[in-house]
Amino acid sequence: MKLDKLVGNRFKERPSDCVIDSHALMVRGAYMKYVANGIFSSFTPLVRITQKIETIIREEMDAIDGQEVKFPVALPASLWEESGRYETVGSELLRFKDRSGSPMVLGMTHEEAAVQLVKDYGQTYAKYPFMIYQIQTKFRDEARPRGGLIRVREFTMKDAYSFHTSQADLESYYDRCHAAYERIFARAGVPEVVSVASDSGMMGGSLSHEFMLLTPIGEDSIALCGHCDYRSNVEAAVCTPQTTADAVSEPIQLVSTPNMHTIEEVSNFLNSPVEKSCKAVVYQQVADNRYVILFIRGDLEVNEAKLKNFLGAEIYPADITPESGMNPGFIGPYQFDTHGGSHIVCYDQSLKGANNLSCGGNVVDFHYTGLDVTRDLGDIAFGDFAKIVDGDICPKCGQPTIRVSRGIEVGNIFQLGTKYTTAMDMQYVDEAGEPHYPIMGCYGIGVGRLAASVCEAHHDDYGPIWPMAIAPWHVHLCSVRSDTPEVKAAADALYQTLTRNGIEVIYDDRAVRPGVMFSDADLLGVPLRVVVSPRNLEADCVEIVSRDKRIQIKEPLGSAASKLIELVSEMR
Amino acid sequence: MKLDKLVGNRFKERPSDCVIDSHALMVRGAYMKYVANGIFSSFTPLVRITQKIETIIREEMDAIDGQEVKFPVALPASLWEESGRYETVGSELLRFKDRSGSPMVLGMTHEEAAVQLVKDYGQTYAKYPFMIYQIQTKFRDEARPRGGLIRVREFTMKDAYSFHTSQADLESYYDRCHAAYERIFARAGVPEVVSVASDSGMMGGSLSHEFMLLTPIGEDSIALCGHCDYRSNVEAAVCTPQTTADAVSEPIQLVSTPNMHTIEEVSNFLNSPVEKSCKAVVYQQVADNRYVILFIRGDLEVNEAKLKNFLGAEIYPADITPESGMNPGFIGPYQFDTHGGSHIVCYDQSLKGANNLSCGGNVVDFHYTGLDVTRDLGDIAFGDFAKIVDGDICPKCGQPTIRVSRGIEVGNIFQLGTKYTTAMDMQYVDEAGEPHYPIMGCYGIGVGRLAASVCEAHHDDYGPIWPMAIAPWHVHLCSVRSDTPEVKAAADALYQTLTRNGIEVIYDDRAVRPGVMFSDADLLGVPLRVVVSPRNLEADCVEIVSRDKRIQIKEPLGSAASKLIELVSEMR
Repeated sequence: MKLDKLVGNRFKERPSDCVIDSHALMVRGAYMKYVANGIFSSFTPLVRITQKIETIIREEMDAIDGQEVKFPVALPASLWEESGRYETVGSELLRFKDRSGSPMVLGMTHEEAAVQLVKDYGQTYAKYPFMIYQIQTKFRDEARPRGGLIRVREFTMKDAYSFHTSQADLESYYDRCHAAYERIFARAGVPEVVSVASDSGMMGGSLSHEFMLLTPIGEDSIALCGHCDYRSNVEAAVCTPQTTADAVSEPIQLVSTPNMHTIEEVSNFLNSPVEKSCKAVVYQQVADNRYVILFIRGDLEVNEAKLKNFLGAEIYPADITPESGMNPGFIGPYQFDTHGGSHIVCYDQSLKGANNLSCGGNVVDFHYTGLDVTRDLGDIAFGDFAKIVDGDICPKCGQPTIRVSRGIEVGNIFQLGTKYTTAMDMQYVDEAGEPHYPIMGCYGIGVGRLAASVCEAHHDDYGPIWPMAIAPWHVHLCSVRSDTPEVKAAADALYQTLTRNGIEVIYDDRAVRPGVMFSDADLLGVPLRVVVSPRNLEADCVEIVSRDKRIQIKEPLGSAASKLIELVSEMR
Repeated sequence: MKLDKLVGNRFKERPSDCVIDSHALMVRGAYMKYVANGIFSSFTPLVRITQKIETIIREEMDAIDGQEVKFPVALPASLWEESGRYETVGSELLRFKDRSGSPMVLGMTHEEAAVQLVKDYGQTYAKYPFMIYQIQTKFRDEARPRGGLIRVREFTMKDAYSFHTSQADLESYYDRCHAAYERIFARAGVPEVVSVASDSGMMGGSLSHEFMLLTPIGEDSIALCGHCDYRSNVEAAVCTPQTTADAVSEPIQLVSTPNMHTIEEVSNFLNSPVEKSCKAVVYQQVADNRYVILFIRGDLEVNEAKLKNFLGAEIYPADITPESGMNPGFIGPYQFDTHGGSHIVCYDQSLKGANNLSCGGNVVDFHYTGLDVTRDLGDIAFGDFAKIVDGDICPKCGQPTIRVSRGIEVGNIFQLGTKYTTAMDMQYVDEAGEPHYPIMGCYGIGVGRLAASVCEAHHDDYGPIWPMAIAPWHVHLCSVRSDTPEVKAAADALYQTLTRNGIEVIYDDRAVRPGVMFSDADLLGVPLRVVVSPRNLEADCVEIVSRDKRIQIKEPLGSAASKLIELVSEMR
């Protein structure tokens, strides 16, 4: 099509409200327009990009025996009540009432709708396994939308749901889907996306993976091993703290530590490293406000996701009142008063076997020294509650080669188990006539977020560098000085030939300076640019430049079309 | 794909809650599943059908220089406040608040979003004309959803918006879009869809057309001329009542008509035809409850849409109180008391020039006879407020050949004028630097409703008869007795060959009776069925039958694939 007719204003200045590059470039290039907080309209270039991503996704989902279906955007609240999520999910689930007063929700994920659709179908084992997926608009009422298409409230998502009669079958399908995801991201131009083990959060279920594009602007933290292939979301990363005990355990004794509230102050005062201290981090449970006291080695940070999972409850940082019997800054595990068992006490594994630790004295202005965990705390259970950090031990290969990076989550896969089929009473009978709940997996990809991630991964200061497979057009044809009859004739002919051969061409024949033309071309990020100009035609050639500058050639006019067709096919 | 693996239960019994055939067949064939009132999920066959319809729509919209964009489903209420529709549209517009308490709506049409998207772009005349369209989920909170996909609350729609600098340019584009619509419906297999002039309703603007599939189950009434090409929605159809005056006007006189309240009772009593009477139909305006008295010839019915448009106000049937000064059953135009002008009086053109009419006496139990409208009512204005009926005069060719049919509206096109651009202050400057509001057109097609309409138009008792262009698959391959190695080998080979040649095949190799196979095939409505069976193979052939039974041939096994490929291409 003619660039002249492409709806949308492109401009040079970086919008002040755009924090990340992909957002700024997609606003500057008229890919998208702000409508409301976290809600955007898309112009044609972005529609073309997302449609190509959707086609790739469809092909790969069909290749693993997926069947495309479609669920409603607006769902009756009763469906979410069946699964229990109407109550448990927070205000990111948009709840409303229709004209008759019936409570409804806007779908942010469709496990309930999927079970409702196939409940009647999946009544005998012979129908299994099967997978259904949709590509549909979703709404998640995020408190803090950010980064353009990275975190929005309304978005297009591919979500898939598989149903199985055994955990082994789910796992084998899960692996097929994992491989399909790798193909999708590779085809969409971001083979650098990595899968990481993750915390399942509100989806329930046991095993899950997130597909992450590693980038400093990501909002997730990922632990990667520099030695083996271990990768995990920091929330789910297993810590293996190295705690070594001194040869000789000193006796435990109470020492005065006036006005010292932080672990650093106390360690400094005692002239002992922070690793030789035990600190208390205190939370309260949302449901009943009970105190949760976590004791952990002084140098480690708490991974709240692990603590939540252990407790099976939501928590918040405690407000420690005098009635609790605790003295903030001086809480220690030795002779700790659980208030008749009403306080919940957890011990991080970093304390296991440690000795000669300092810790709170449970009395204002006093700490203990010489705590020997085994000797002084007796038979206690330890858990993994620490946050992994750079240089930590890899739980897979055992090397101290963990590094923590930032990433954008562009997809995820979950082994859901029977959480939804049980809640919604979906059953099948096996060969022996026995009833069972089918086991589910679910698999998501955010289409708009993937487009933005590709842009984030592949751009320069002047615009996105779209991979051929998802670029809005294949070739950007610049006709410099279209008022010259020879230029117009040559450019028109090239446009016709390319279009006839199935090449998608955006054709710029405006009477503007080459600088304007080229900066618009940079913003549209089309992989191949071909320039027809009076100077090139004098040499009977055109100039072909790839957006990533790897290709910069002069091609004879006569073979320009076939050269471009060849390049498009190579780059696809 | 294998039918065996197609998710969804097909069954024989007509569901009791399905009023129309297309709904019953699409439930029986597992095309769709009820989720909530007017809200459905789609199984794969319907997804495939609607995607093919969407592809046809995209091709035709692109062919008339449309650019695909995408607007949000959830829109800020402020956009609808700008246009004024947040107030004026009824409860079919779903209003809700997000987590921060901001008022929002679910988009049921996107004029406001379209203007918002292109407002910055269309600032100079040189950018015009342009058209943007989207294919997107919409929500319209219908009070009475019905007929499966015919009237739903959530639906997929193509909506397009064009912008122009002159009425002439809008009209010429409107004609191009009209032609594109005719191509779309023809390609989708319903060339019988006709366009009819319509009432613009809440969209505003002047000229509009609806594209109607004529069918007794439709919920719209359409007036068609049997002599010329005049077609109009009954709501918008111009009436040309034949009112002939008697040669001699009798004097007006009050006669006693005790206990006669209806026009028929009075006419009988007076021994005069109903056409020689003038009746009063009384409404009240929603906004201020003012009475609206419409006088119209006794044999005609009122077209409320015309009255609403004339008044520019919503109305409801009046509750005539004693305070109104009117006596129900005896209201007449002669010496009618307008209550100091507070009652609004309208006269239908059917009264123009009429004489010797009976009418209410404005006193209980009395009517006038001998009313001569010109003589007795003086200088009054007439309007067109009557409903057109079978046998009426065609307003175009003047023949009494109007017939009224029912129809389903599958698309519509509107000349919107500057209603939205003015309200939202979108302006461009012309060549002389003068500011103007661009003139808009808008153009809609309901994708799901079109699919259901095709089914309604083309089905038998056993299932839909899908046209090749939108059928879920091209060929339905039945392998009867797949446990016979020869059958399995031949059917497998045919499946491979067809699939390799781009033919979409649904392959039924289940160990079920042929009757089950064929009734499933009928429900899926695939245009071509090919049967491989032991008996056919004995004759070294396969049986090819088209769903509409026009083709029933035995084809040698060796040429079966090429024959099917040829037939698919012919039927496309």
